[in-house]
Amino acid sequence: MALTIRAIRPDDDDDLWNLLEPVIRAGETYALARTLTRDQALRYWTGADRETFVAEVGGRVVGTYYLKANQAGGGSHVANCGYVSAQDQTGKGIARAMCTHSLAAARERGFRAMQFNLVVSTNTRAVALWKSFGFEVVGQLPRAFQHPVHGEVDAFVMYRLL
Amino acid sequence: MALTIRAIRPDDDDDLWNLLEPVIRAGETYALARTLTRDQALRYWTGADRETFVAEVGGRVVGTYYLKANQAGGGSHVANCGYVSAQDQTGKGIARAMCTHSLAAARERGFRAMQFNLVVSTNTRAVALWKSFGFEVVGQLPRAFQHPVHGEVDAFVMYRLL
Repeated sequence: MALTIRAIRPDDDDDLWNLLEPVIRAGETYALARTLTRDQALRYWTGADRETFVAEVGGRVVGTYYLKANQAGGGSHVANCGYVSAQDQTGKGIARAMCTHSLAAARERGFRAMQFNLVVSTNTRAVALWKSFGFEVVGQLPRAFQHPVHGEVDAFVMYRLL
Repeated sequence: MALTIRAIRPDDDDDLWNLLEPVIRAGETYALARTLTRDQALRYWTGADRETFVAEVGGRVVGTYYLKANQAGGGSHVANCGYVSAQDQTGKGIARAMCTHSLAAARERGFRAMQFNLVVSTNTRAVALWKSFGFEVVGQLPRAFQHPVHGEVDAFVMYRLL
């Protein structure tokens, strides 16, 4: 079935939380407090400083991502994104579709580069995916992420020009 | 004269703005909008997510820095700081004193590393200073900063364990 990506609507909140909750509670890939409430999580993910999208397949929301400026002022031409896919839909190309969409959206908005600030080194699937999109590991942060299973692990800064 | 460093008080706002305004307006070292108002700048520099300090010499505020967690959740053991010294006081060791103070303050609060996310590569004085404190360039972000004089220049991610 075709995957479509669209801007969020107010009635997406339940679907967004269904996607975000397991990722936040696991605490293995995003530097977000595992104790965030639904409201805090939605406020973060759909904040006024970003655009938020959902990916749908057959009317079901199966993924979400946000696009924002990574920094203000002299850093505002560099975009930043975060992506979450439904955990029962891994391997179906949802993250790939969202990344493709986000790179085009970032270019349309005039961004000239995209940066991921903290890619957890144990998240090998994500690292491989971003590399396939031309992102490079431009930095390695020693022991910068406390992984609930693996303890302190390195994180990567990934970056590509647009 | 002795330099002392203390937590900010409400009546420091004028002194803080006097330090921040030229740095923000110049736009050469911090990724902050050059158009920030006084209120916006003070809200940023003294936000609830950080501790802010001033350095005084003979009763005059000659520098300020903040200390905060660089990320939430699994990244919350890594500190982040920003430092500003009075422009007519360069070379007097104010930044050095603030960096020393911040490393001790970060350790006291249980942080296990410190990260600077965007050190503008043309800010060679700062890069050399942080290196002298054991920070390493762990990442290089191509063209990540729009310098008002030099155009798009690289930025560094600098990092050290505590």
